[in-house]
Amino acid sequence: MIIDRLYKNVEKKGNVCVGLDTRLDYIPSRLKEQYQDIGEIIFQFNKRIIDATTDIVSVYKPQIAYYEAYGIEGLVAYKRTLKYIKEKGNLSIGDIKRGDISSTAQMYGKAHFEGDFEADFITLNPYMGFDSITPYLKYIEEKQKGVFVLLRTSNPGAKDIQYLNIEGKEPLYYHIGDRLNELGTEYTGSCGYSSICAVVGGTHIDEAKKIRNRYKNMFFLIPGYGHQGAKGKDVALYLNKGNGGVVNSSRGIITAYKNYADGEENFYKYAREAVLAMREDIGNEKGL
Amino acid sequence: MIIDRLYKNVEKKGNVCVGLDTRLDYIPSRLKEQYQDIGEIIFQFNKRIIDATTDIVSVYKPQIAYYEAYGIEGLVAYKRTLKYIKEKGNLSIGDIKRGDISSTAQMYGKAHFEGDFEADFITLNPYMGFDSITPYLKYIEEKQKGVFVLLRTSNPGAKDIQYLNIEGKEPLYYHIGDRLNELGTEYTGSCGYSSICAVVGGTHIDEAKKIRNRYKNMFFLIPGYGHQGAKGKDVALYLNKGNGGVVNSSRGIITAYKNYADGEENFYKYAREAVLAMREDIGNEKGL
Repeated sequence: MIIDRLYKNVEKKGNVCVGLDTRLDYIPSRLKEQYQDIGEIIFQFNKRIIDATTDIVSVYKPQIAYYEAYGIEGLVAYKRTLKYIKEKGNLSIGDIKRGDISSTAQMYGKAHFEGDFEADFITLNPYMGFDSITPYLKYIEEKQKGVFVLLRTSNPGAKDIQYLNIEGKEPLYYHIGDRLNELGTEYTGSCGYSSICAVVGGTHIDEAKKIRNRYKNMFFLIPGYGHQGAKGKDVALYLNKGNGGVVNSSRGIITAYKNYADGEENFYKYAREAVLAMREDIGNEKGL
Repeated sequence: MIIDRLYKNVEKKGNVCVGLDTRLDYIPSRLKEQYQDIGEIIFQFNKRIIDATTDIVSVYKPQIAYYEAYGIEGLVAYKRTLKYIKEKGNLSIGDIKRGDISSTAQMYGKAHFEGDFEADFITLNPYMGFDSITPYLKYIEEKQKGVFVLLRTSNPGAKDIQYLNIEGKEPLYYHIGDRLNELGTEYTGSCGYSSICAVVGGTHIDEAKKIRNRYKNMFFLIPGYGHQGAKGKDVALYLNKGNGGVVNSSRGIITAYKNYADGEENFYKYAREAVLAMREDIGNEKGL
């Protein structure tokens, strides 16, 4: 099971997930000047970030919107980035947040678990119901893949729908979480976690312990660290003896260089420093 | 406002929206033999369907999953299809069902309202809340664009989340619909409908009149006709004096030729016949 590989990565390398939300204006000018093609520029930036951090990062998460924004060329960079992460022996989460009817979900499965855009994990949106999730599950066993389903996201708007009390009882995200937890038992790896994972934003500290206790076998992708406001001690509440989750940071890592005079030429070194600082902040062991 | 253009199309051409869910196995062999490249094959198929139907179709809806499944080549076909619809003077709905945090939504806006994948309308998923919808609204005025937000979808799983009673009262889709309806008043065209539109599945006939009455100024995209089970008289319940909505059919139109001995060479003619039959079934005027 793919979840066992992610679990082992976390055990060895800590909880950092690097979000490759690569906008052109995040890329140093001197790198941009070296290449003609936008797709090449984006890929070369990502490659250097990956090369400089793969020993201390458990998984990379390219957000597909940033690549779609640059059209076909951007998506070539998305494809090459996923392939490169694989070549380096690391893991990827394609942050695509898809959710559609069964026949359409099958096509997304083909696109993101088999085709040009193959990732190890993808993110999914549950709004259309569980028949929008189940078409991906055959890939868990057949192709060693996994999914992260949105439960409680890190943005302010999370409260608009996800927090609403269902049938006068609990918030919607518990209703969805309970169903996914049940579905996940069939896909549990030897590490004790399921390959049906969840996205739980680190910006909500009030219910962190309750969520963690309620879903003991669920592995979390925890966004919201850094720019969105969550701190190391906040996100640590969602972990389980240091494992059971990865914490995403995007801008905080890939644009860390912007604070330094020699940042432009050493952007990848500052990305590495930012990962090391984040590891320490979350409570991972020092010394790497 | 773009909604006025769609309204006029419906007035003139009826309620049919053709879903361009173009799978390779939907394409006649003789067309596939004419071209080398998968992207070219898909585009040429779409082009012939569009050419044969544009005078009786109000809007085309390519579902991006079908294109992503064929990777970069597939997305080139998606891009060319949208461009071709525009060249023909017709309208497009990019069925992408995106929903993400504000900074990511801005990138999706750039991708699908400005860039390679520019469509007139896109579909959105509201699960992450209203700050995942608002970044697209500037495009309504600045670039004459519109959105269709998922309310009550046509798949069986719709009941899993969208039907749940909120705070012990009404189903979630009404909660979302009320907020969108309010948001939509600022974006109302001269036709009386808003450019903030909604997806309401035609497979649910029980509450059709209630939904239609509650959201008088909301224009609907109605999926579920044909293969998913909704009939002409069902979907007609969601219309308002024959306008106020478009009804999508995908396979029912683009694979209609498969029922005929001479279908392979005349696939586009059978697509046209299927549109004409659908128009009549919905209650559009005859005689085109």
